[in-house]
Amino acid sequence: MSEPRSIAPVDGKLGVLTVGLGAVATTLIAGVELAKRGLGKPFGSMTQLGTIRIGKRTDNDTRLIKDFVPLARLEDIVWGAWDVFPDDAYVSATRAGVLEQGRHIEAISDTLREIRPMRAAFERKYARNLTGEHTMGDVPKRAMLEAIRADINRFRDEKKVDRVVMIWCASTEIYIEPGPAHQSIESLEAAIDANDETISPSILYAYAALLERVPFANGSPNLAVDTPALRGYATAHNIPISGKDFKTGQTLMKTVLAPMVKARQLGVSGWYSTNILGNRDGEVLDAPENFKTKEESKLGVLEEILEPTKNPDLYGDIFHKVQINYYPPRGDNKEGWDNIDIFGWMGYDMQIKVNFLCRDSILAAPLALDLVLYSDLAQRAGLGGIQEWLSFYYKSPQVAPGLYPEHDLFIQLTKLKNTLRWMMGEDQITHLGREYYDEI
Amino acid sequence: MSEPRSIAPVDGKLGVLTVGLGAVATTLIAGVELAKRGLGKPFGSMTQLGTIRIGKRTDNDTRLIKDFVPLARLEDIVWGAWDVFPDDAYVSATRAGVLEQGRHIEAISDTLREIRPMRAAFERKYARNLTGEHTMGDVPKRAMLEAIRADINRFRDEKKVDRVVMIWCASTEIYIEPGPAHQSIESLEAAIDANDETISPSILYAYAALLERVPFANGSPNLAVDTPALRGYATAHNIPISGKDFKTGQTLMKTVLAPMVKARQLGVSGWYSTNILGNRDGEVLDAPENFKTKEESKLGVLEEILEPTKNPDLYGDIFHKVQINYYPPRGDNKEGWDNIDIFGWMGYDMQIKVNFLCRDSILAAPLALDLVLYSDLAQRAGLGGIQEWLSFYYKSPQVAPGLYPEHDLFIQLTKLKNTLRWMMGEDQITHLGREYYDEI
Amino acid sequence: MSEPRSIAPVDGKLGVLTVGLGAVATTLIAGVELAKRGLGKPFGSMTQLGTIRIGKRTDNDTRLIKDFVPLARLEDIVWGAWDVFPDDAYVSATRAGVLEQGRHIEAISDTLREIRPMRAAFERKYARNLTGEHTMGDVPKRAMLEAIRADINRFRDEKKVDRVVMIWCASTEIYIEPGPAHQSIESLEAAIDANDETISPSILYAYAALLERVPFANGSPNLAVDTPALRGYATAHNIPISGKDFKTGQTLMKTVLAPMVKARQLGVSGWYSTNILGNRDGEVLDAPENFKTKEESKLGVLEEILEPTKNPDLYGDIFHKVQINYYPPRGDNKEGWDNIDIFGWMGYDMQIKVNFLCRDSILAAPLALDLVLYSDLAQRAGLGGIQEWLSFYYKSPQVAPGLYPEHDLFIQLTKLKNTLRWMMGEDQITHLGREYYDEI
Amino acid sequence: MSEPRSIAPVDGKLGVLTVGLGAVATTLIAGVELAKRGLGKPFGSMTQLGTIRIGKRTDNDTRLIKDFVPLARLEDIVWGAWDVFPDDAYVSATRAGVLEQGRHIEAISDTLREIRPMRAAFERKYARNLTGEHTMGDVPKRAMLEAIRADINRFRDEKKVDRVVMIWCASTEIYIEPGPAHQSIESLEAAIDANDETISPSILYAYAALLERVPFANGSPNLAVDTPALRGYATAHNIPISGKDFKTGQTLMKTVLAPMVKARQLGVSGWYSTNILGNRDGEVLDAPENFKTKEESKLGVLEEILEPTKNPDLYGDIFHKVQINYYPPRGDNKEGWDNIDIFGWMGYDMQIKVNFLCRDSILAAPLALDLVLYSDLAQRAGLGGIQEWLSFYYKSPQVAPGLYPEHDLFIQLTKLKNTLRWMMGEDQITHLGREYYDEI
Repeated sequence: MSEPRSIAPVDGKLGVLTVGLGAVATTLIAGVELAKRGLGKPFGSMTQLGTIRIGKRTDNDTRLIKDFVPLARLEDIVWGAWDVFPDDAYVSATRAGVLEQGRHIEAISDTLREIRPMRAAFERKYARNLTGEHTMGDVPKRAMLEAIRADINRFRDEKKVDRVVMIWCASTEIYIEPGPAHQSIESLEAAIDANDETISPSILYAYAALLERVPFANGSPNLAVDTPALRGYATAHNIPISGKDFKTGQTLMKTVLAPMVKARQLGVSGWYSTNILGNRDGEVLDAPENFKTKEESKLGVLEEILEPTKNPDLYGDIFHKVQINYYPPRGDNKEGWDNIDIFGWMGYDMQIKVNFLCRDSILAAPLALDLVLYSDLAQRAGLGGIQEWLSFYYKSPQVAPGLYPEHDLFIQLTKLKNTLRWMMGEDQITHLGREYYDEI
Repeated sequence: MSEPRSIAPVDGKLGVLTVGLGAVATTLIAGVELAKRGLGKPFGSMTQLGTIRIGKRTDNDTRLIKDFVPLARLEDIVWGAWDVFPDDAYVSATRAGVLEQGRHIEAISDTLREIRPMRAAFERKYARNLTGEHTMGDVPKRAMLEAIRADINRFRDEKKVDRVVMIWCASTEIYIEPGPAHQSIESLEAAIDANDETISPSILYAYAALLERVPFANGSPNLAVDTPALRGYATAHNIPISGKDFKTGQTLMKTVLAPMVKARQLGVSGWYSTNILGNRDGEVLDAPENFKTKEESKLGVLEEILEPTKNPDLYGDIFHKVQINYYPPRGDNKEGWDNIDIFGWMGYDMQIKVNFLCRDSILAAPLALDLVLYSDLAQRAGLGGIQEWLSFYYKSPQVAPGLYPEHDLFIQLTKLKNTLRWMMGEDQITHLGREYYDEI
Repeated sequence: MSEPRSIAPVDGKLGVLTVGLGAVATTLIAGVELAKRGLGKPFGSMTQLGTIRIGKRTDNDTRLIKDFVPLARLEDIVWGAWDVFPDDAYVSATRAGVLEQGRHIEAISDTLREIRPMRAAFERKYARNLTGEHTMGDVPKRAMLEAIRADINRFRDEKKVDRVVMIWCASTEIYIEPGPAHQSIESLEAAIDANDETISPSILYAYAALLERVPFANGSPNLAVDTPALRGYATAHNIPISGKDFKTGQTLMKTVLAPMVKARQLGVSGWYSTNILGNRDGEVLDAPENFKTKEESKLGVLEEILEPTKNPDLYGDIFHKVQINYYPPRGDNKEGWDNIDIFGWMGYDMQIKVNFLCRDSILAAPLALDLVLYSDLAQRAGLGGIQEWLSFYYKSPQVAPGLYPEHDLFIQLTKLKNTLRWMMGEDQITHLGREYYDEI
Repeated sequence: MSEPRSIAPVDGKLGVLTVGLGAVATTLIAGVELAKRGLGKPFGSMTQLGTIRIGKRTDNDTRLIKDFVPLARLEDIVWGAWDVFPDDAYVSATRAGVLEQGRHIEAISDTLREIRPMRAAFERKYARNLTGEHTMGDVPKRAMLEAIRADINRFRDEKKVDRVVMIWCASTEIYIEPGPAHQSIESLEAAIDANDETISPSILYAYAALLERVPFANGSPNLAVDTPALRGYATAHNIPISGKDFKTGQTLMKTVLAPMVKARQLGVSGWYSTNILGNRDGEVLDAPENFKTKEESKLGVLEEILEPTKNPDLYGDIFHKVQINYYPPRGDNKEGWDNIDIFGWMGYDMQIKVNFLCRDSILAAPLALDLVLYSDLAQRAGLGGIQEWLSFYYKSPQVAPGLYPEHDLFIQLTKLKNTLRWMMGEDQITHLGREYYDEI
């Protein structure tokens, strides 16, 4: 047992600003509002349902996480959002087609109607297939930045919230190579002034959040807060940041199956992954420049889990292919099909095929909720900069410079839970468990 | 860093006695012999290919396990076996149809021809679909026990081996409820004398091994060494034991996917698992009494991972069904199909379907090799009784009385690797990793 | 062009009596009522949506079947039913959970509420897992027969219907071997008087229908009308009969894929079929005696399509296994998984795997509608006895003595459509099509 | 019974010229040679194993097709080939990796070694990913045409064959829109002289074949013989031609499942098809221009089977996507995955998922054999021009101008078999079968 960390109290209201008020954000908002009224359960959310074991297995001390660490309550959340469409949360949720109209949308229609998006900082060139016009217009990047900051402050004042967290729930932007503009706050500032096109909206949102001391969580593969400039700024000012890209369907599965084949020392010769997806996200990703951003986020996973340089015989020659297909008949119900060619003892080949019939926003919403609550916890616990312990939620986790990311879902889970134990001054769990045998 | 454990040197020859010289045992033997000659690689074996990280992530110190802990070398293994068929390892491997005849059997035919099984302690009533007659005959159980002990000693003498490990690679026996006869050595001895039918051959083999101070690993779901009598004896005399039932195809998958849904707080409403399998194991399991033994081993997994009592909303009402179908067209190439009905945020249902086209003996052989080498290591390291750190290899891990078993493959892996670190006096890995961030 | 057949006009009302008012019957009834009001479309029904080509391909003369042959209109259907539960069609449809409550049940609740079942002729021993008590009670079989006849006549009078068709939409009974009691009307009559247990309720319903000159269609694998006694009676009195067992999910697929492999001369070494199903039908089939009846119906299909005696090299050694698993999480949404092991050129093996996520009653209801309308057409066209042209709808088609049934879905379709053409005096279509080339 | 057609006797040797000596051609050749020696069976070939029913069902007269129509015997086939690689059939078959080396290649190595390809008429621009240099070189198209004709004549003389058939077993060329050059023999001749780039090698091979009165069968989707110019020439000179594109894996499946959903009046909202394939064909198709040719061939199938204009409610809005992925780990073992979104009664949605683990050349070789033998039969029977009755073998069947093609595998089979019956003067089979019932 070590000293628990000092954590500021969780009093007052927590403002949650979502960038985007589409399928993910409205599913998040509606779900939380339904849960508050007892009309639905927030399954999928560790902060709401998860448990944590404290002490030895024989202590039989397993607690709800929300009873173990001081998290903001759902009742204290206040919503705000930006979007390129002017639809309120009721209209947007209805259009998204994720939730049942009667039971899950009409039941809270008044609340949803009141959530109207602010105008988005947006330029069409970053997401060609997106056509909304509820934007700040064709203004310079500096003006966009200032407008976002003003939006944050207005939200804070009007809603009388004590703390704010910002989370990116909007589309994938086109691929941007990290470049000179992103290296320092100075170069970033200069690039903003120069309207440099490597400064995408997601970077402006992230920077505005940090300038206002608001934690930022990045649910997309966009650069956003993942640049030396913003990482350094967040660390220096002790503001929690995390990213990138909600780990939901196929990549979630991949970060479970790849650790399995590696644990068992089974080789991999090929991994073919294809997705069909019919929502707005699928439509945006139908543009090759946007898919490239997602692809980068998805492809790295295997290499970093399997470590071909350390296991060349097993993983030195993998043919890895990832596809996303826009397939309208399914709407938000995405589906992944993976074919994995493995080999074992003496090189004999075997195959694993996984068909995952999932739901994009249903899987993402609880991750967004957890990230909001944990980012707020981190800020109150004085943990600034990159929150690597939140890797569990991301396809492409941000980590300290010089570190490789952990993609294995179970290492990520251990990291998260041992971090919670550390915060509260409880022993780390190592699963060594000699004590059960040595005393016999 | 703690004190490393004192481990006896690995000099001399290691005798490996397999109960059964069928598909698994011959695939094990042939594979090791091929690997020794550079004619094949022992993929699937952690002791041969696995690595372990020592120290911090930034230390970049990852080592081969076989360089980290003192394991017997493949070159020092000497084989022995019992079987109900008189076929030598060449004939049996050929019949099993697992390995390619030319490249993987003929290439080492001389060695395989020399491995001839001893007569098996066997009674037909424990495996009705098994017809072999190369047995000790219809003799009393006491005589069987003594004959097995004599076989062990003769093997030790003739082959001049320094240490011996016994591993059960034979069929699943009919289901036997643990009863009074299994509670103490005294009652066991009396039951043997009385020819009590709750004393199956696997119990006799396990007891003979322990009487001869030979570690015993149980690749089947049979009772064998998993009784109070034998667990107590093994602990008292400091002999490593472990079991039960090699975790290969579908259950391997289950102990990876169930932890995933649990990590993500996704609920489960149903899990339907079916297998098709055409080898002798499939044939034996076609008898309902034998399948029951396997079924018990397979069904517990979900309950113990998902802990419905701690998560009643998520796992309190799961319909779980497991089937094994004897399907001759496939031979040793077994195939599993799982349909998993899950639900997430607000109760929306999703489905995961997994089709695993695997190979029974190809998956089992490297586990058998690891268990042999780790059991020997445990004995040299003075670790007797139940080896819970070897849970990683078993469908139904043996644990100390009063403990629940860990089924989650990744907890098992952590347990195994942290045990190795502990043996060698290295730090436990907790994945907390605060040091990478606190100094920034 | 031949002489068209004389067909009685389709004036007046058509009474449809369903044995069973469960999932299939209520889905049928509700669907027809919705379609009548323009609230839903009867997809899946050939009589409502199907087309038929008349003449040469270049004639471009494709017509709706319902415009080509004189079928009763949906508007003229009047419903009646028997069931072991007293629930009206509204309650039963709600319980079945097949149709959406609001859009597809409430919308026609008044009509459904008016359909109340008559007491069923039922004995528990024929379907052990069925517990309803809305029955005629424990009366002799002769009394049951007379009660059913009285029910038919009362229905005819009260509803003022001009013609009646009866269709079995109830559960599968236990397996009954056709025996002496079923050979002639005399032996059948004697057996009824003797309360012989080989006279199941389905036989009584079928016989009652024939005695009242009502066509009978058998949606289950029960013996019902498929005995020498009743076939002979139906032929002698020119009453249309047909059966057995609606061909919906997996068998539908099988009668499409087996013809494919046969067309291509691909061999089959194994076919493993498993089903998960959670409705009342699944529950009844969970009893082995009832499953046997279904299994017989399902197993014959492959043998009769592939004709192993004519193609011993290709189909002489098939391992065929069929399973149905009661799996409540799915309700009426059944799912089939087939693994087919095939081989081609020089014996190389290949695999086909089919996962069919279907809906039991949604697939069955349109078949029931077509059978009702075609049975009525047959009667008006003077076609009595076995209607082999309706094989298209059945897993186990009834055919004339001495004939093998046609299971191939496409031969069945050709037979059905060429029968319609023959009825109307149009040319048979043979697909020879020499005329398109010879005149060039 | 009509008059049988006059068919020239099948005396003497049949020369088979394959364009391409890659995986398909060597699998064809090796298989036939193995079958001749009794070392393998030509499963998959209708001409070798197929049966045909003659007369009524009760006549019980089912014959082997090769006993019913006069086909060339395997013993009388003599092989010739062109290829861009100089490897003989032994080397090429070994590289292709389709057949087992020992049992199926070494066993007939002498014969395979003797089959050495002639230099191919080839230009890299028609198949960018193909690098072979065993070509006629960079010569004008006119010279290529003449060289092919000279090759045919040399082959005829040297091998002393009585009849010759040519079959395209080579790669898919880039997509070429049929244009003015292809409209008549005059324009074709002019284009050849002008080295017009719309005259691809496949057109030159096809034209050379026709000029030499050699039937031509087109196993690829290339234009080849499918132009007004060559169709007209073949008809005028009574030379059998057929195409396009062997119907093997996924499209075979599609032409079976689409007829099923149509037979059952089930609607289709989406059909997603993806393939993984690692052989040279997969590599060539990795170039978008070549894939386009294949895609055209694959996409038309659904539309022509489902006829959306005749069934707009059911098929008016289908999202159809087809992908082929070059995936080297599998070699020639291709795999298709289809997801089909269907809907039934009242619009309820269902899904069919098909995973076909097949083998490209193993499926194609018997089709090639049948096409060769049936093309030769057609020529001897005096049937020139398009052989629509061979549609059964093609993804994209050639038909008379003004006709729509039949894609339904079972209509194609009926057409083929009724054509054979017509040739031999036997009755057409319509499956009407009234005679079994009318006489009762």
